[in-house]
Amino acid sequence: MLRSNTCGELRIEDVNKTVTLSGWVQKIRDKGGLIWIDLRDRYGITQLLLEEGRSDANVIEKARQLGREFVIQAKGEVIERVSKNPKIPSGEIEIDLAEINILNASKTPPFTIEDETDGGEELRMKYRYLDLRRNPLMKNLALRNRLSIETRKYLDSQSFFEIETPYLIKSTPEGARDFVVPSRMNEGQFYALPQSPQTFKQLLMVAGYDKYYQLVKCFRDEDLRADRQPEFTQIDCEMAFVEQDDILNTFEGLVKYLFKEVKGVDIEKLPHMTYAEAMQKYGSDKPDIRFGMEFVELNELAQGKGFKVFDESELIVGINAEGCGNYSRKQLDKLTDFVRKPQIGARGLVYVKCNEDGSFKSSVDKFFDQEALKIWAEKLNAKAGDLMLVLSGEADKSRKQLNELRLEMGERLGLRDPKNYKPLWVVDFPLLEWDEDSKRFHAMHHPFTSPKTEDIEMLESHPGSVRANAYDLVINGVEIGGGSIRIHDRSLQKQMFTHLGFSEQEAQDQFGFLMNAFEYGAPPHGGIALGFDRLVALFAGQDSIRDFIAFPKNNSGRDVMIDSPSPIADNQLDELGLKVVK
Amino acid sequence: MLRSNTCGELRIEDVNKTVTLSGWVQKIRDKGGLIWIDLRDRYGITQLLLEEGRSDANVIEKARQLGREFVIQAKGEVIERVSKNPKIPSGEIEIDLAEINILNASKTPPFTIEDETDGGEELRMKYRYLDLRRNPLMKNLALRNRLSIETRKYLDSQSFFEIETPYLIKSTPEGARDFVVPSRMNEGQFYALPQSPQTFKQLLMVAGYDKYYQLVKCFRDEDLRADRQPEFTQIDCEMAFVEQDDILNTFEGLVKYLFKEVKGVDIEKLPHMTYAEAMQKYGSDKPDIRFGMEFVELNELAQGKGFKVFDESELIVGINAEGCGNYSRKQLDKLTDFVRKPQIGARGLVYVKCNEDGSFKSSVDKFFDQEALKIWAEKLNAKAGDLMLVLSGEADKSRKQLNELRLEMGERLGLRDPKNYKPLWVVDFPLLEWDEDSKRFHAMHHPFTSPKTEDIEMLESHPGSVRANAYDLVINGVEIGGGSIRIHDRSLQKQMFTHLGFSEQEAQDQFGFLMNAFEYGAPPHGGIALGFDRLVALFAGQDSIRDFIAFPKNNSGRDVMIDSPSPIADNQLDELGLKVVK
Repeated sequence: MLRSNTCGELRIEDVNKTVTLSGWVQKIRDKGGLIWIDLRDRYGITQLLLEEGRSDANVIEKARQLGREFVIQAKGEVIERVSKNPKIPSGEIEIDLAEINILNASKTPPFTIEDETDGGEELRMKYRYLDLRRNPLMKNLALRNRLSIETRKYLDSQSFFEIETPYLIKSTPEGARDFVVPSRMNEGQFYALPQSPQTFKQLLMVAGYDKYYQLVKCFRDEDLRADRQPEFTQIDCEMAFVEQDDILNTFEGLVKYLFKEVKGVDIEKLPHMTYAEAMQKYGSDKPDIRFGMEFVELNELAQGKGFKVFDESELIVGINAEGCGNYSRKQLDKLTDFVRKPQIGARGLVYVKCNEDGSFKSSVDKFFDQEALKIWAEKLNAKAGDLMLVLSGEADKSRKQLNELRLEMGERLGLRDPKNYKPLWVVDFPLLEWDEDSKRFHAMHHPFTSPKTEDIEMLESHPGSVRANAYDLVINGVEIGGGSIRIHDRSLQKQMFTHLGFSEQEAQDQFGFLMNAFEYGAPPHGGIALGFDRLVALFAGQDSIRDFIAFPKNNSGRDVMIDSPSPIADNQLDELGLKVVK
Repeated sequence: MLRSNTCGELRIEDVNKTVTLSGWVQKIRDKGGLIWIDLRDRYGITQLLLEEGRSDANVIEKARQLGREFVIQAKGEVIERVSKNPKIPSGEIEIDLAEINILNASKTPPFTIEDETDGGEELRMKYRYLDLRRNPLMKNLALRNRLSIETRKYLDSQSFFEIETPYLIKSTPEGARDFVVPSRMNEGQFYALPQSPQTFKQLLMVAGYDKYYQLVKCFRDEDLRADRQPEFTQIDCEMAFVEQDDILNTFEGLVKYLFKEVKGVDIEKLPHMTYAEAMQKYGSDKPDIRFGMEFVELNELAQGKGFKVFDESELIVGINAEGCGNYSRKQLDKLTDFVRKPQIGARGLVYVKCNEDGSFKSSVDKFFDQEALKIWAEKLNAKAGDLMLVLSGEADKSRKQLNELRLEMGERLGLRDPKNYKPLWVVDFPLLEWDEDSKRFHAMHHPFTSPKTEDIEMLESHPGSVRANAYDLVINGVEIGGGSIRIHDRSLQKQMFTHLGFSEQEAQDQFGFLMNAFEYGAPPHGGIALGFDRLVALFAGQDSIRDFIAFPKNNSGRDVMIDSPSPIADNQLDELGLKVVK
């Protein structure tokens, strides 16, 4: 090894030892008589010392040629520092340098390699290998590694097998768009990269493997929104001979284990909330339950009082923002502007201030007297000093708008502490959802999800009301993953495909292998997939996944560092029997 | 859970417990008064018992409807068996059945689900989910899971980080053929699937991550030979601030750890053998050193004696097959046929039998007298009862031919026990190898491999003689993996590209990002990649990797189960800006 120790491990107990360190020059301070070099590696920073008159003149000469990010090997003796730095673990010692070897020089990096860098997004992506040197990114990738190790440790302890499923599979038009891979040996034919190993993990259950998992890359060729990546990682799992609660309990165990092992946080029993309740109380299927501020419906109280906006609304729904009764006109206008933003789309916002003297001041004083507003306050559990915020209109839309407002108010009131973790299960999702574009029902989860037995009879009459044995794991308003109990009966699966608009031929062509497999002793089974990139980001208390992936793509799906995608050679196209059409 | 216990865990201590098992019907024996059902799951087999007169008549009725591979749930009491079966762990007990629930029926499977099945290769591939139910395949995937867990445990204990590198990268013409992925968002451009994460792991070293690993899928679009798969798994590793021996020691540690933990086998210190020595003594860069039978060169002894074949040969080289002196004429003819097979290609085989009476009988008695043959025997260390086998011709070809003969003789003599593991390091590979087709030198390992410092001066004058800091891990004649110390200097890397026939523009277009990275403080680094599929097969003492992959492709690169690759829809092609040219 080109080192005896790392830059993170030497302590006061090591004084007098002769050591060799290797790493990058973080900083040089040359005060004439004294030169200090901060040497950095993955493990930390150690200070190197040179003193004119005492240290070797050649070494001093060499040190003066060094620049930021030079890679050097440094030999010397560990000594106690005169002025100690309590901020870093190695701050009590330094190395009295006897020798420097320059292992590689460095041009001046295009941005500073510091916790807070001066580099812009695009530049840092292009020089990702330099950005990755920064401490925050090192910590992110270390956290990712730790979470993957602990995830495997837990699942292994529960007798799960990690089984690799293929990456070159078959394209199916259902769901998101596939990335395809032309086959040279089968000209004119294509593989697809998996959006998830869904059918393979189900086949593993048919094959009797019983408890499967895999940390696996998945691929979706979708137009990238902020924080979507064309390739992403899932903790993909499946179990046989289970009912829904067995799966929820097993993965609740994983969640608790990870929080305990990695963050030292004890998580309480996860609440179960139905989809219907989540929509009604929070206007979202991924409610942030770190704070209350639950929705209260006011139709009965607020309609028929002459306020046309309310009278014409399907739903009037409000929240109580505690302690915001003193909001100024300007602050209230800003809230109105917030809900009127095109991406939220409310027409307006009704507010009711609960004054300290017990009176009320509202934007609808013309229609509602003090007595009426008092009843609102009682219903919303608002007390003096609080602020009631009310939206109205079409039910679904109003709920979604109020969800945004609730989250915004939670943010303003500091109720969304990233270090406070409140996971829950949202259960009983609808089986199908209506798609306006294609004018037909789509599978809300996927076509393999089992309807609730008691709801199957509604499949023909009220398809939109059929509930599925489907569930999501939600933490702090973020959907970390979801799953379902699967169909394991050929005829029910066939029926589902019919409901989803597949012809018999299409169903057979695309998923015949699965339906055939169901005829050879398929056990009851179900599973879950957790978004690993997002889970890691959440553990770090951050929103964006990009800095938890070593080499991410930008929003155009490009890797600007290696400049990919790129044109390929004509002979490659010829071999594949393909032509690029301009 | 649909079971209280698995089919593998109940023992005599569990007698009197009421249990629920779930699994597949392996076998039913209906002797009229008594019915036995073997119920199977991943964990084992448990026998279920029904007795006419005593058991519930409805349950007996139900049992008589069962067929092989039905999935059932069985409830009853654990009882002691009258006639015990010592061959299975649960053989002392059976379940006195009180209830059967048929969870799913099964058609008669197209082949038997037994250790030895009657199903042909093609049929088993098509119904892979049934083939995977067989015990040998379950054991293979369990072993694979165990090896992946232990590999990660070891590398984690050595402070390696597992870091995921991208799957959508850039196509480069060097090396094997890439699978490409058309980009929809960047029309006319393509990603490539990685043949290995080589450049990314080097960039991680530049980024300071110091010890990287990944169990990762890699892709090569090559014409499939037996036992090659278009997608395969590597244990991919890289370390910074190391010299060659540091890498060899670290991964020798991994090899020893895996053999100890997974097979309970202690492995001795791995010998290091140079490529030159391996070629000279074994005619192979992956020598099987479970047995000796080393090559002995006979040019000095055998030339100039009037035997034209020898006199015109560049090399005369032999081995001693101990105890084969009694081979019959027929056996010797078979050996001659063996070396004359087109895939081996020797013109003939010279043999010398060492008779028990101290005399010799050879196929070249006309040219070599007893005295001459005695000297051969001394040189080959052959004693009475042994058989000397000699090939001659062009040096490289003769060595390769004799390698095949040596392995064949080792096989015949039972010297290649699959339970005896003899790993070694082959080191000092040539940097370049001459390619007859393109009439130029190619990188033997890859273009990023560092030449030995002392050989760099020969790069211009004798490129074929330059040795690389490259090494292979070989176990029992199988190349499990290889690696090298990499170039970390921009100008040397540039020089290498020139030697490999890259124009400056080509080098910059394809690997500019790596050469740029070398200018910003690239540390000395090196690494290794081990073929995981092959490692697992080796641990199971088997040659073929196919049955260690859950869902392999056939020799045409097809997955016959899901019928992939397959044509894609026209609108998919349109979106990609591609046309299939017939």
